[in-house]
Amino acid sequence: MKSLGKLSRVLVASVLFSALALPAIASDPLPSWNDGDSRNAVIDFVNKVTKKGSDDFVPAAERIAVFDNDGTLWAEQPMYFQLAFALDRVKTLAPEHPEWKEKQPFKAALEGDLKTVFAGGDHAILELVMASHAGVTTEEFSDIVEDWLSTAKHPKTNRPYTEMIYQPMLELLEYLRDNGFKTYIVSGGGIEFMRPWTESVYGIPPEQVVGSSIKTKFEMRDGTPVLVRLPELNFLDDKEGKPVAINQHIGRRPIAAFGNSDGDLQMLQWTAAGDGARFCLYVRHTDAEREWAYDRESSIGKLDKGLDEATAKGWTVVDMKKEWKTIFPAAK
Amino acid sequence: MKSLGKLSRVLVASVLFSALALPAIASDPLPSWNDGDSRNAVIDFVNKVTKKGSDDFVPAAERIAVFDNDGTLWAEQPMYFQLAFALDRVKTLAPEHPEWKEKQPFKAALEGDLKTVFAGGDHAILELVMASHAGVTTEEFSDIVEDWLSTAKHPKTNRPYTEMIYQPMLELLEYLRDNGFKTYIVSGGGIEFMRPWTESVYGIPPEQVVGSSIKTKFEMRDGTPVLVRLPELNFLDDKEGKPVAINQHIGRRPIAAFGNSDGDLQMLQWTAAGDGARFCLYVRHTDAEREWAYDRESSIGKLDKGLDEATAKGWTVVDMKKEWKTIFPAAK
Repeated sequence: MKSLGKLSRVLVASVLFSALALPAIASDPLPSWNDGDSRNAVIDFVNKVTKKGSDDFVPAAERIAVFDNDGTLWAEQPMYFQLAFALDRVKTLAPEHPEWKEKQPFKAALEGDLKTVFAGGDHAILELVMASHAGVTTEEFSDIVEDWLSTAKHPKTNRPYTEMIYQPMLELLEYLRDNGFKTYIVSGGGIEFMRPWTESVYGIPPEQVVGSSIKTKFEMRDGTPVLVRLPELNFLDDKEGKPVAINQHIGRRPIAAFGNSDGDLQMLQWTAAGDGARFCLYVRHTDAEREWAYDRESSIGKLDKGLDEATAKGWTVVDMKKEWKTIFPAAK
Repeated sequence: MKSLGKLSRVLVASVLFSALALPAIASDPLPSWNDGDSRNAVIDFVNKVTKKGSDDFVPAAERIAVFDNDGTLWAEQPMYFQLAFALDRVKTLAPEHPEWKEKQPFKAALEGDLKTVFAGGDHAILELVMASHAGVTTEEFSDIVEDWLSTAKHPKTNRPYTEMIYQPMLELLEYLRDNGFKTYIVSGGGIEFMRPWTESVYGIPPEQVVGSSIKTKFEMRDGTPVLVRLPELNFLDDKEGKPVAINQHIGRRPIAAFGNSDGDLQMLQWTAAGDGARFCLYVRHTDAEREWAYDRESSIGKLDKGLDEATAKGWTVVDMKKEWKTIFPAAK
């Protein structure tokens, strides 16, 4: 061994260094969460399901966590951001559709008359979304979304929409992934509206994004295959649709679910009903100053039945005002 | 350092052992493939896309490989295995359906008269599948599939269906995964017929299985949420449907695609049309002795247009008889 003297010293030193580094205190994984019930509940759950030998241990492959997007990972006021995209897109497309000047809901959309648009109800919104989201290939649509996000600004904060995301939820996503969880989005929003940016913004790759969709059609164009987006609803990923979509896309029942509205209730119920340790959390919008305050009476992100069930079942409800140190990340 | 003498020797020995182990020659990743064009083409492609700094390098996150199932990963003769399941299930359910004794295609199915069943065409098959696959919850269906697979035997080989899989393809799946690929099934077969067993048989988890499906409905039963399977087609994952489903489930274009029939052609075209290095492979059934020999004229797994396109485009076509040392794994 003598001729290895120097090498051995280097090796021993490096091994000891690693050994010393190991028990170092881990830095706080959730720095934007105040010490309180919600933070503790999350950490307790993660410790429980990741502790080998524990009764609650869940193998990594089954650590599926599902997140709603609008109002859970990013803001949704004063209107769903995808609707802002649809309205802008209707304006861009208007020169090709002179008939829209006289036809509702397009007329109102072009005049910026949101009151009339909303008065048309879901049907009007759906019509705007179809007209603005279809007629292009999937690749063209992805570019259109990226272009829009690179310039559009939120009407209240003047920040890019992709910065209207919740810093505490970003930390939570990363904390779960660091503990072997696979994080999915399961949103009422458009699957192809989200996929172009969820990986860079949330660290969630396209194959882990589930959402509403319109139909697409395979076509050959000059010998090149394309998928063309059709003005026909394929799937509405809301309420009862969420467990259906989870089953269709993931094929496993999640062990943790995160939402903010009654539209997420069935997803939380489905998650909670599995065997073993389960975690359900509602983000409650309580901060009129730093964000918005709304729940039982809101037309966007209504949280009413869900709040009752969360109380009855002992699910975690985050009080944004009290429990979150920061809402949005620092401006870039 | 002296007091660490023994420790340091152990450490040095273990580090040196690891170091010596590193450059050891890797064992053959595809032992059931004869040295030949197909084997070389696969290995060349994998080397190319995994070599950092190469023009063809593809980041691991984008290394998506899609595999058809029937006739590509497991056999499909003398009939799709899922149809054998449907026929057995019709027999099991017959006591609850006395009307089937007089009603086609059920009458023929119960009498084992396959000729009449097939004479009814796709419509008859679909009717049998609906009747035998619906009316239960998703969890019940999963158990039913597992029970069937644990006892059913292939009519020719008398082996369990899950042993009628291609050993060379198992090696290929593992070789791709060892090189950072994410392997998916994209099959015309039922998504929920495959998911209960693809992980243990192919190493492919449920969330990486894409297939045909019937609709499901979220329901509360005595306060417990269930997903009930309905006798209504949701999606047919065949031909033009395959790129549509790939886009819907994965949201990325694969860089490698593996099939065996014209039903896979659009999936291969979609894969081939992306930028950068691409790999398309057809398994051609040429071995009447060890498996089955069929292509252009077959009603099951017809490979006609696909074979022409493979030749024109220079895709890899595996001659099972010449290129595979073994077809099925050794009996357990």
